[in-house]
Amino acid sequence: MQRAVTISLDAMGGDHGPSVVLGGAALSLSRDPSLRFVLFGDQKAIDAVLATQPALKAASEVRHTEVAVRMDDKPSQALRMGRRVSSMWQSIEAVKKGEAQVAVSAGNTGALMAMAKFCLRTMAHIERPAIAALWPTQRGRSVVLDVGATIGADAQHLVDLAIMGAAMARIVLGVQTPSVGLLNVGVEEIKGVEAVKEAGRVLREAGMAGLDYRGFVEGDDLGKGTVDVVVTEGFAGNIALKTAEGTAKQIGGYLRAEMGRTLMDKIGYLLARRAFSALKARMDPRTVNGGVFLGLDGIVIKSHGGTDAEGFSAAVDLARDMARHDLMSKIRDMLEHTPAPATP
Amino acid sequence: MQRAVTISLDAMGGDHGPSVVLGGAALSLSRDPSLRFVLFGDQKAIDAVLATQPALKAASEVRHTEVAVRMDDKPSQALRMGRRVSSMWQSIEAVKKGEAQVAVSAGNTGALMAMAKFCLRTMAHIERPAIAALWPTQRGRSVVLDVGATIGADAQHLVDLAIMGAAMARIVLGVQTPSVGLLNVGVEEIKGVEAVKEAGRVLREAGMAGLDYRGFVEGDDLGKGTVDVVVTEGFAGNIALKTAEGTAKQIGGYLRAEMGRTLMDKIGYLLARRAFSALKARMDPRTVNGGVFLGLDGIVIKSHGGTDAEGFSAAVDLARDMARHDLMSKIRDMLEHTPAPATP
Repeated sequence: MQRAVTISLDAMGGDHGPSVVLGGAALSLSRDPSLRFVLFGDQKAIDAVLATQPALKAASEVRHTEVAVRMDDKPSQALRMGRRVSSMWQSIEAVKKGEAQVAVSAGNTGALMAMAKFCLRTMAHIERPAIAALWPTQRGRSVVLDVGATIGADAQHLVDLAIMGAAMARIVLGVQTPSVGLLNVGVEEIKGVEAVKEAGRVLREAGMAGLDYRGFVEGDDLGKGTVDVVVTEGFAGNIALKTAEGTAKQIGGYLRAEMGRTLMDKIGYLLARRAFSALKARMDPRTVNGGVFLGLDGIVIKSHGGTDAEGFSAAVDLARDMARHDLMSKIRDMLEHTPAPATP
Repeated sequence: MQRAVTISLDAMGGDHGPSVVLGGAALSLSRDPSLRFVLFGDQKAIDAVLATQPALKAASEVRHTEVAVRMDDKPSQALRMGRRVSSMWQSIEAVKKGEAQVAVSAGNTGALMAMAKFCLRTMAHIERPAIAALWPTQRGRSVVLDVGATIGADAQHLVDLAIMGAAMARIVLGVQTPSVGLLNVGVEEIKGVEAVKEAGRVLREAGMAGLDYRGFVEGDDLGKGTVDVVVTEGFAGNIALKTAEGTAKQIGGYLRAEMGRTLMDKIGYLLARRAFSALKARMDPRTVNGGVFLGLDGIVIKSHGGTDAEGFSAAVDLARDMARHDLMSKIRDMLEHTPAPATP
């Protein structure tokens, strides 16, 4: 029997609020009728959407909140105005109280991370949280972390990232012993930073049961899907993620521009439109929507703020998988069997 | 009258040696007959190629060398075996001696940087060298640096990168006052590293004549071409560069796979092949081949090792532009008018 999963949703998060959040939840529910939801936000706005979604209404409990964190609120502002009272805070707190196994919000990343840290605190043995992204690759998907939760990393943090990423990859990729690489630069002379080298030494020598350490990887290995889990410090990881998104948009722009230039191109485009749709689907950022906050004492998933119901439902599905396959226990198990890096 | 330019070439560098290096030089010469070359490498191998390239032969002087640095030599190895005697070293030394205004090599990056540093030394007021890349964007091209010469950067180094990048952009982009951005991460909570913030403060307050500082940019601004010059520390820069290359390859792979799936797709592909060729040309890494070593007392250009004659000629053309428009003087002029950042 599948484990029942209750998901708390920040109905006010994202550029479009309840319509997209509840629309996405309804899609996920139609694929998995065992889901249950706790919805936090403006009761009137939520009820208006639920009136058109009877199945979702039957599977949900609504909790009215007065305050909604705005997309441009700074984390400090969000905490000051929205602590305890906002839909964002309460959806996280539901995880802390055990009313839900996982929270999903499309609200702003900085505010969500600040509240998640404040409310849930970091888990035992973990100093700092991370955000893990699903990265589409030529082979399928990889888990890449940290894509922007914390800047700078010592060896211990990188080893923690490897463990947490591997635990997540076991669930989302269905691989028992995920391959793990440390993101580094290939220029011979410099050979990367000390922390990366030291983390590599620990991962190589520890021989951890739950992951298969494969050494250093470079930026172009991300798209190749060379390893299941790519570990990097948050500054470089955030830049890599956004660079890849930008490059994909850039090439999409080139393609559109070139395809409309002559009549022959346009006819060719029409004939090959199945291929273009398939390409578009493979490049669709909605299918890999959902940043997983790791290292906190509870699971929180961040959806893109600008996504639609389809995209939000991908984040909800991801949340369900993380909860159903008990990400937290998987991480805790692996952490218990980890040696500490040498103190510098 | 155009300034005459003599370029020293490491004829043994790259995966293919003299055939590609001299083939590329011949292409550049056919576009600009005023060029002169000093060719360093195995006399026999060079003569064999020159026999088929009379114009290049007439424009070149050959200097025989016994030692060639291999593509997999470590920098320390290359220095030990190849200092003073290798084609790579001597092509750099020709710049030092004033026999050439710029050197081009397709040899391995680590060895080339080690030799260039050892032979040319860093220029006055510059602590560490950098590698600048030309980045294809939706608007055209940008200069991005550092893409892997040195890891880590303090505010002073980032300001130096901004100045050197702007000097280069004035030449390659033909913009009198290039716009400059500092690569940073957008997550509100963390707001980037101290060095980046301090460099931003200096650039904003200094109001330098030769550049237009526009603030922070993120990874996706690279492909957009938001600014003419993107400044970043070498670790993140190298990862961004390789991530973009990997993403472009990944999408190219998707496109090829999808276009061959059904007969209709194939016909569509044939009809629109002009558009696909144009797309391929826009994504062709050969057209932006050439990493410029900056901060040394002389100009050295690194070509991709695996490129063909067409690609190598792009690096030669870039070298010619850097020399003809006197990159070194442009950098020196700007450095003289730069305030120092606050010491932390």
